[in-house]
Amino acid sequence: MVSGRVVVEAVRPEVDGGRFPIKRVIGDAVDVEADIFADGHDVVAAHVRYRKAGTKTWDRVRMEPTGNDTFRGAFRVTQLGTYEYTVAGYIDEFASWRRDLAKKLDAHQNVAIDLIEGAVIVERTAKRAKGSDRGLLLGFAERLRGGEPDVARDTELEALMDRHFQPAHVCAYDRVFSVFVSPHQAQFAAWYEFFPRSFGGFKGAEEYLTDIAQMGFDVVYIPPVHPIGVTNRKGRNNSTEAGPDDPGSPWAIGSSDGGHTAIDPSLGTLDDFKRFMVKANACGMDIALDLAFQCSPDHPWVTEHPEWFRHRADGSIAFAENPPKRYEDIYPIDFETEDHEALWMALREVVDFWIDFGIHIFRVDNPHTKPFAFWEWLIGGVHLAHPEVMFLAEAFTRPKVMNRLAKIGFDQSVTYFTWRTSRHELQEYFTELTSPSVRDFFRPNLWPNTPDILPYHLQHAGQPTFMARFVLASTLGATYGIYGPAFELQENAPLAPGREEYLNSEKYELRDWKIEDPRNLAEFIAHVNRIRHENIALHADRSLRFHETQNDALVAYSKCSDDGSNLIVCIVNLDPDNTQGGWLHLPLEEFGIRPDEPFPVHDLLTEARYVWQGEWNFVELDPHSVPAHVLRLRHRMPKEEDFEYYA
Amino acid sequence: MVSGRVVVEAVRPEVDGGRFPIKRVIGDAVDVEADIFADGHDVVAAHVRYRKAGTKTWDRVRMEPTGNDTFRGAFRVTQLGTYEYTVAGYIDEFASWRRDLAKKLDAHQNVAIDLIEGAVIVERTAKRAKGSDRGLLLGFAERLRGGEPDVARDTELEALMDRHFQPAHVCAYDRVFSVFVSPHQAQFAAWYEFFPRSFGGFKGAEEYLTDIAQMGFDVVYIPPVHPIGVTNRKGRNNSTEAGPDDPGSPWAIGSSDGGHTAIDPSLGTLDDFKRFMVKANACGMDIALDLAFQCSPDHPWVTEHPEWFRHRADGSIAFAENPPKRYEDIYPIDFETEDHEALWMALREVVDFWIDFGIHIFRVDNPHTKPFAFWEWLIGGVHLAHPEVMFLAEAFTRPKVMNRLAKIGFDQSVTYFTWRTSRHELQEYFTELTSPSVRDFFRPNLWPNTPDILPYHLQHAGQPTFMARFVLASTLGATYGIYGPAFELQENAPLAPGREEYLNSEKYELRDWKIEDPRNLAEFIAHVNRIRHENIALHADRSLRFHETQNDALVAYSKCSDDGSNLIVCIVNLDPDNTQGGWLHLPLEEFGIRPDEPFPVHDLLTEARYVWQGEWNFVELDPHSVPAHVLRLRHRMPKEEDFEYYA
Repeated sequence: MVSGRVVVEAVRPEVDGGRFPIKRVIGDAVDVEADIFADGHDVVAAHVRYRKAGTKTWDRVRMEPTGNDTFRGAFRVTQLGTYEYTVAGYIDEFASWRRDLAKKLDAHQNVAIDLIEGAVIVERTAKRAKGSDRGLLLGFAERLRGGEPDVARDTELEALMDRHFQPAHVCAYDRVFSVFVSPHQAQFAAWYEFFPRSFGGFKGAEEYLTDIAQMGFDVVYIPPVHPIGVTNRKGRNNSTEAGPDDPGSPWAIGSSDGGHTAIDPSLGTLDDFKRFMVKANACGMDIALDLAFQCSPDHPWVTEHPEWFRHRADGSIAFAENPPKRYEDIYPIDFETEDHEALWMALREVVDFWIDFGIHIFRVDNPHTKPFAFWEWLIGGVHLAHPEVMFLAEAFTRPKVMNRLAKIGFDQSVTYFTWRTSRHELQEYFTELTSPSVRDFFRPNLWPNTPDILPYHLQHAGQPTFMARFVLASTLGATYGIYGPAFELQENAPLAPGREEYLNSEKYELRDWKIEDPRNLAEFIAHVNRIRHENIALHADRSLRFHETQNDALVAYSKCSDDGSNLIVCIVNLDPDNTQGGWLHLPLEEFGIRPDEPFPVHDLLTEARYVWQGEWNFVELDPHSVPAHVLRLRHRMPKEEDFEYYA
Repeated sequence: MVSGRVVVEAVRPEVDGGRFPIKRVIGDAVDVEADIFADGHDVVAAHVRYRKAGTKTWDRVRMEPTGNDTFRGAFRVTQLGTYEYTVAGYIDEFASWRRDLAKKLDAHQNVAIDLIEGAVIVERTAKRAKGSDRGLLLGFAERLRGGEPDVARDTELEALMDRHFQPAHVCAYDRVFSVFVSPHQAQFAAWYEFFPRSFGGFKGAEEYLTDIAQMGFDVVYIPPVHPIGVTNRKGRNNSTEAGPDDPGSPWAIGSSDGGHTAIDPSLGTLDDFKRFMVKANACGMDIALDLAFQCSPDHPWVTEHPEWFRHRADGSIAFAENPPKRYEDIYPIDFETEDHEALWMALREVVDFWIDFGIHIFRVDNPHTKPFAFWEWLIGGVHLAHPEVMFLAEAFTRPKVMNRLAKIGFDQSVTYFTWRTSRHELQEYFTELTSPSVRDFFRPNLWPNTPDILPYHLQHAGQPTFMARFVLASTLGATYGIYGPAFELQENAPLAPGREEYLNSEKYELRDWKIEDPRNLAEFIAHVNRIRHENIALHADRSLRFHETQNDALVAYSKCSDDGSNLIVCIVNLDPDNTQGGWLHLPLEEFGIRPDEPFPVHDLLTEARYVWQGEWNFVELDPHSVPAHVLRLRHRMPKEEDFEYYA
């Protein structure tokens, strides 16, 4: 037989032709599409073939035609780690024969020979069948030979042929794609970053964990916990002269007390950290550890492995710089050192140490200043042994670099959300992030602020801005984070005009946070996080779409659960000063709502309830009250049993 | 050294990740783009590497950054056949050093060590240099060591470093793409199809070749020239009973007079055909031969190789059918026969026979009913030996099937132009055909009619429709064709209502064409073909773009030469009954015309000349006069030396 009659093209989803895996979380259905066709007029059919990586045999699921030579089929990923999938198309000889026979019968053509040819196909299948099926098939063949055309339409024959089906002209796609399956948390989590040292170290900060949990956060991310260097230690506000009591930047890692596996004595001991982690876990939260692969001049590696650092022409070790910026308290690691095998292994051992300790989330500091090949090697190795471990790329850099880091293994990535403020910017950026294939490799983690960044629009801003940015981050992103208590206390003073940095940054000094301040947004944050947990539409980003508002100050978007049952529409007033109103358009038909039918709308933020009708409805938001709607739409008017809901 | 610092991604143009070559014609520049970046802050540079396939060494051309981590570089293809290309990115150590030094100097930082490090780089390069260059480089290094920062800006040093440059961290893209280079004719030609038998066979038709040449055509395509079967021969208007004088369909190939390498006696001899071909060539035209791989029941192969055909359950050979349609005068070839190696070779020998005869253009009949693998094998083999040979896929079928045939080697493809009549349809379809990557593998050949198709809009249509469709075909498509004399004589009678076929189709009978008919559009056609030849903007399709007209009956589009010097704007009135006017928008800035500057416009169809100004100008077209403008725009007001042009 000549191969090559069936063509399988454009199998999707895929990232760079299969060079990188797509990302999914456990329980997801992987919807596979492909263009499949053959020469001539025969009926073409297809399967998705899939398996857990390392398994020998393929499972398969039949694909259904969706028009224009496209087929679709889905399989579910139920285990962590890597799955493989591909597509095989083939000619369905029996279906082709049945279709042609029917057409000839309709045209009153002589089908005597066709019936015999059908019998031959059935007899060939009978040879593969055993027991009673074989006899049944032979019986059908005999009736076809006897000239009974109606046999072709017999559903029992169809079922038998299907059961013993052996495809002809199978054409397997020439590539196998892979999907890396992570815990659900890789896709849906609220992060909270804070400096335990401002709360008296691990012991003192244990208490604050309860507050964080009450705000509804899922992940607590803390800056590096390791001993801080003394040489060239930075003082308050990043000054090059540190006072005697200045604690230094936690990112200047390593001192005589140890390096990347040691704990800074001012925070406590390794046991204290363990207790802190266990307490967080007991509150339903996970600890994310900072992974900053760089050293202070006092890091033990500097003397133990001077060859791991770049030496200048005068024999000194090069400190970090991005001319004209200079970071004298940090030595970058030389990933290209001759001894890179030992170096890379030592860095892997750091990660393994903390995994053994109980950490499974790492926020990686500036990954874009280290070789891509290193990360692909490191994360690949860790994921193989520990598919539950997650890495967040803190790479506030150029788009293609961010994308590459996501492709080579980072489970999550920071985003430009921090600086996207207008409706147009938000719409354009998040449409890009949720389009194929970006959505298949890039998991956004949205931060309105970080210890490094107080963006211009938060400087001197008030409650409307902080609330609006919080609602945007937490509903545009299934995963988001804030740096607190600076955020919820609406800290808004910049280091200097034109600088997007905090005055009195906690990176260089301890801060005494006034949690009891009446402006604290903790309750609002807790409320929004509760809404997030209760509405699975907000647990993923794939369904995000924007809607027209006829007012540029109002941005509107929706998210929907896979089954369509949970539908959330958010409208945010981007103007912190004025009440803004406008007509909102919703694609009712796509939402499964009839245009002539009133539908109930429930604002989960304010508990307000409306009944809307038609594709256009008016919305108005006063920023000084609540600058956003988070609306749950019901697809039908309430029935008797919904009464309580409306009480 | 650790590899992997530089990433090369998204190299383009490419078709299906390099599975198929892109297409270009001789003399084209291949513009290659790629996304290229590295970790950290070093300066990245890149080359396009290219070579004629079969050559050992690569040529290279430097790529220039165009923003957002994208680089672009071009190479020119000057020979027929296959070229290969790929991209290599690397870190430019010297450029990085120079840039950082400049920044540090600007910030008044101490650069003593930097100068020594620069000297080390220059000294390393000196080791590779010979003769005086070596001494010069060492001199520069010494001055750097002596503390002279200005040396870094020395252009002689820059040139020397460039000359002896050896890239570090080279990262070659992991795939090599290929480009198949055809003669210019593959991209630009006007085709004319006619039946020589209606002109008395080859001898009689020789005279008509002069008429065709005078109309300005470049390719003469004739239906199969082979002996026609007698068994089940079709009569007039496709009747199943042929009269004694009915000539039969030329696509029912083969009789006792021979098969695919024989000439139908009623047309003449092989020598007559040769003389016909030589005459065409003398008129500046090439003959395109029909390649219809199917047989009449009387084809010699039916008795010599019965195993090359599919046998039915009753032992008979299956005739062609697409139930309920039946083609009793044709046996399809069974490409999947056990003996397929001999069969495929015999078909290849048919092609080689005609290539040896002097044919280098083949119009392939219904390629979509034969296996893709066969065509890829056949065309691949022919192209290897004869890169000048061209195959046109006559596959009026589903879009993905048409695209696949183009990908696997067909040099040209028929299009849906035949049925695209509204502005929206034309705009949508031709935007698709001229977008990447479709434009890189699919070369459209536009036909307003064929012997098989008299589309509904030509039925009972008058001159305005025929003229408009002709202008559309010949300006939207650098390659187009008409079936004549039916077209230029405005033949418009359908076989029956609801049938897109000609009444008294020339496929089944001889026709006596009244060339002298005053309605003959020959002169108009000649005029348009002259305009095509004189304006290189019309020699390719890549630059096609549509423009707004504020009137749906007016479709407007432009084409431009690569260097921008030849710019043609076409406006066609799609309404055959009424004069239509509307405001036309032109993107003057992109055309290189200042919005405040009047610019001359010359209608090449009517010789009318206008002076326009601004982005919006009014156009009006009376279909009963000339239903189209073909405007040549000048980019500047005429100077003295242009005076003659405006005389």
